Amino acid sequence: MNGNPTVEVCFSPKLYSYKLTKGSFTTVVVDILRATTSICAAFDHGVKEIIPVSGLDEAEEMKRKGYFVACERNGEIIDFADIGNSVSDFIRDDLKGQTVVFSTTNGTKTINMARDAEEVLIGSFVNLQSLAEYLISKGENVVIFCAAWKNLFNLEDTVFSGALAEILLSHGFQTVCDSALAAIDLWNVAHSDLKNYLAKSSHRNRLKHLVSDEDFIYTVTLNSTSVVPKLNGEKLELRIY
Amino acid sequence: MNGNPTVEVCFSPKLYSYKLTKGSFTTVVVDILRATTSICAAFDHGVKEIIPVSGLDEAEEMKRKGYFVACERNGEIIDFADIGNSVSDFIRDDLKGQTVVFSTTNGTKTINMARDAEEVLIGSFVNLQSLAEYLISKGENVVIFCAAWKNLFNLEDTVFSGALAEILLSHGFQTVCDSALAAIDLWNVAHSDLKNYLAKSSHRNRLKHLVSDEDFIYTVTLNSTSVVPKLNGEKLELRIY
Repeated sequence: MNGNPTVEVCFSPKLYSYKLTKGSFTTVVVDILRATTSICAAFDHGVKEIIPVSGLDEAEEMKRKGYFVACERNGEIIDFADIGNSVSDFIRDDLKGQTVVFSTTNGTKTINMARDAEEVLIGSFVNLQSLAEYLISKGENVVIFCAAWKNLFNLEDTVFSGALAEILLSHGFQTVCDSALAAIDLWNVAHSDLKNYLAKSSHRNRLKHLVSDEDFIYTVTLNSTSVVPKLNGEKLELRIY
Repeated sequence: MNGNPTVEVCFSPKLYSYKLTKGSFTTVVVDILRATTSICAAFDHGVKEIIPVSGLDEAEEMKRKGYFVACERNGEIIDFADIGNSVSDFIRDDLKGQTVVFSTTNGTKTINMARDAEEVLIGSFVNLQSLAEYLISKGENVVIFCAAWKNLFNLEDTVFSGALAEILLSHGFQTVCDSALAAIDLWNVAHSDLKNYLAKSSHRNRLKHLVSDEDFIYTVTLNSTSVVPKLNGEKLELRIY
């Protein structure tokens, strides 16, 4: 390895502590179905800030304090919450300029685990290019951290990781990470027909009755927004250019 | 899922406890570079039985008791051992009919972790077809368990898993496991030029100075032997047809 920045992909929260990247790094959290796609959608539609919380107790406490709360477990909205974590839940005029508390099965836990990174960003197909451009301009080591499904590898987070890793490698980043190489190969298998490729994933099938076709098409559409959400203390905010 | 047997792939020892397979199942342990390839080579060349031990202390104690000991850590032979875990270490006439104690960085620990399965088998490219035929004839659920590299996903174990999973799915097995689907896609990317595909893997590069070209070519050659090693109590033995 020379001085070029590195890219590594982590397939599960249970593998994050074994990552090879040392020193200063940026972590991109990925939970394509659905947390990180919905976070991008929310910011794209004017939400001001999102507070990710891991536990249900904490989410319910925030609700009691008067916050607007988005909360799901196993894909379904929790009873005390205002909305779940569907993309379409966040696309509503009354959330413009507002703060949303957000808790999901896999995504928000992953965001909170990633706090060892110097900077934590949110990645999804819808903001792929803007995210990649920011990472390239920054030139720091990157860890792409898949939220997975209950700790197990999933296709949709992996294929996105491959898309991002491929752009970074084409801009001088390096890797010694087999997960990144595999993810890039899977992206190349998938990308000409991303929707049908991901339709076979176990998690898509798990969520089929919960994710509308409209939301799924939004999810697999590349670069529909230029937002790059980043963690700032306890909150996700829009990175300002 | 109907009553057909299932196949699942586990990419790391740290993910094994999260596997989806329930009830009775057979686990295939995979550590292509190099433990499970070397175990197949050893049985193919007449070794009678192999005792896998996880710890160095245990291996050294077995050496003191007079056993022939194969032992490596991080790819290099340990000083008290008779041999390391290269394929070529096991291809020698004086081991015919003998017992070998075996301890490696990833492979033997994985074998010992797999003891929750009803049956534990050893898989590598060199015994792929025989192993698949046995699993098909048995018709039980299968978990393909990659030894990985210090808990991290690796390409060579994954591509083998895909090769095996693809055969099983073509014989009526089913899967709801994204790891299996990804492994099959990677096998299809790799298989027309397996040697060069795996030459890019991080672990192959890590071991380049330790794995001879001859051993590597043996490793990526399909179906050179019909041995199916299986765990029987504390020992690996040849499954008798």
